Amino acid sequence: MSNLKERILKDGQVFPNNVLKVDSFLNHQIDPTVVKEIATEIHKHFADRGITKVFTIEASGIAPAILVAAAFEVPMLFAKKSVPSTMHGADKYVTKVHSYTKDITSDVIISQQYLNEDDVVLIIDDFLANGEASIGLIDLVKQAGAKVAGVGICIEKTFQPGRQRLEEAGAEVYSICRIASLEDGQVTFAEGN
Amino acid sequence: MSNLKERILKDGQVFPNNVLKVDSFLNHQIDPTVVKEIATEIHKHFADRGITKVFTIEASGIAPAILVAAAFEVPMLFAKKSVPSTMHGADKYVTKVHSYTKDITSDVIISQQYLNEDDVVLIIDDFLANGEASIGLIDLVKQAGAKVAGVGICIEKTFQPGRQRLEEAGAEVYSICRIASLEDGQVTFAEGN
Repeated sequence: MSNLKERILKDGQVFPNNVLKVDSFLNHQIDPTVVKEIATEIHKHFADRGITKVFTIEASGIAPAILVAAAFEVPMLFAKKSVPSTMHGADKYVTKVHSYTKDITSDVIISQQYLNEDDVVLIIDDFLANGEASIGLIDLVKQAGAKVAGVGICIEKTFQPGRQRLEEAGAEVYSICRIASLEDGQVTFAEGN
Repeated sequence: MSNLKERILKDGQVFPNNVLKVDSFLNHQIDPTVVKEIATEIHKHFADRGITKVFTIEASGIAPAILVAAAFEVPMLFAKKSVPSTMHGADKYVTKVHSYTKDITSDVIISQQYLNEDDVVLIIDDFLANGEASIGLIDLVKQAGAKVAGVGICIEKTFQPGRQRLEEAGAEVYSICRIASLEDGQVTFAEGN
């Protein structure tokens, strides 16, 4: 069993509405041992795809993404949820991402100069549930004319439609840990995982 | 010369009001080679201080902080600028941080359970200018009764008062790269750096 699954069973907390809290090792406090193992596995899976860039969204995606980028020895780019002062006037790609937990839709932005048609992009995120964030990142990659090599996920909730939406968008999804159910406060992993 | 200084000279852009844009390798797109070298140097400097936790603030601090935490083999904690759904009801430490570039003061939050009086904390941030973010993080460490071992910074602007404020708060500051001036659009490094 991976470090990540062990830690989910030991330290994960299940909240109402299928929320899994992993603040003690992935989302607020981060255990570098867990994230390095995730990065190593994702690198191994996508090693032969010619990845030129790792792409995520602030803030929780950054820690796994920089370790994945270090494994591939390519730059990591993170999309921003607001426009910093240094990006005013720069050409941007913009997409909209809906947050189900906060029930708001926000613009998500990158500078145009860091993605182009020569890039082969690996998208990284901490969670895959409804797939909103990853769909938004795929849209930004497509606006840049770049190619999506796949989506690497730390924790997937297989009972929500994220994977189906990403696959319908043409992206291969690889998840380190797949959760089939959080019913009755219990974590049940998907079979074959 | 360090990778970081070379990249600042090669790819950094100076904007009005002493803004140094390093979006191509540190703040938006991140070069893992540069950040790993930063983490290695900061680890070497603070190696014998008994660090138990690395602490930063979202979002730009996360990439250097997770690599520093990996070098120390301790957890990394990042302070949040808003309260996520999984933190509602949890006991929090809260401080206020002023952003000079955005001219707003915001609450910055951590869950109480991830810092305590046994912790020896190394604070990491990408920039040190007026010191607002690091002062806020020091305040959170002190609220938890933990000890500040020091502050590790990627890029310090020595012509702004950040270092003095942190030292007056009792924290040792170690910066990988110290910039003495950005006048006339030119980067001038501090002597002895």
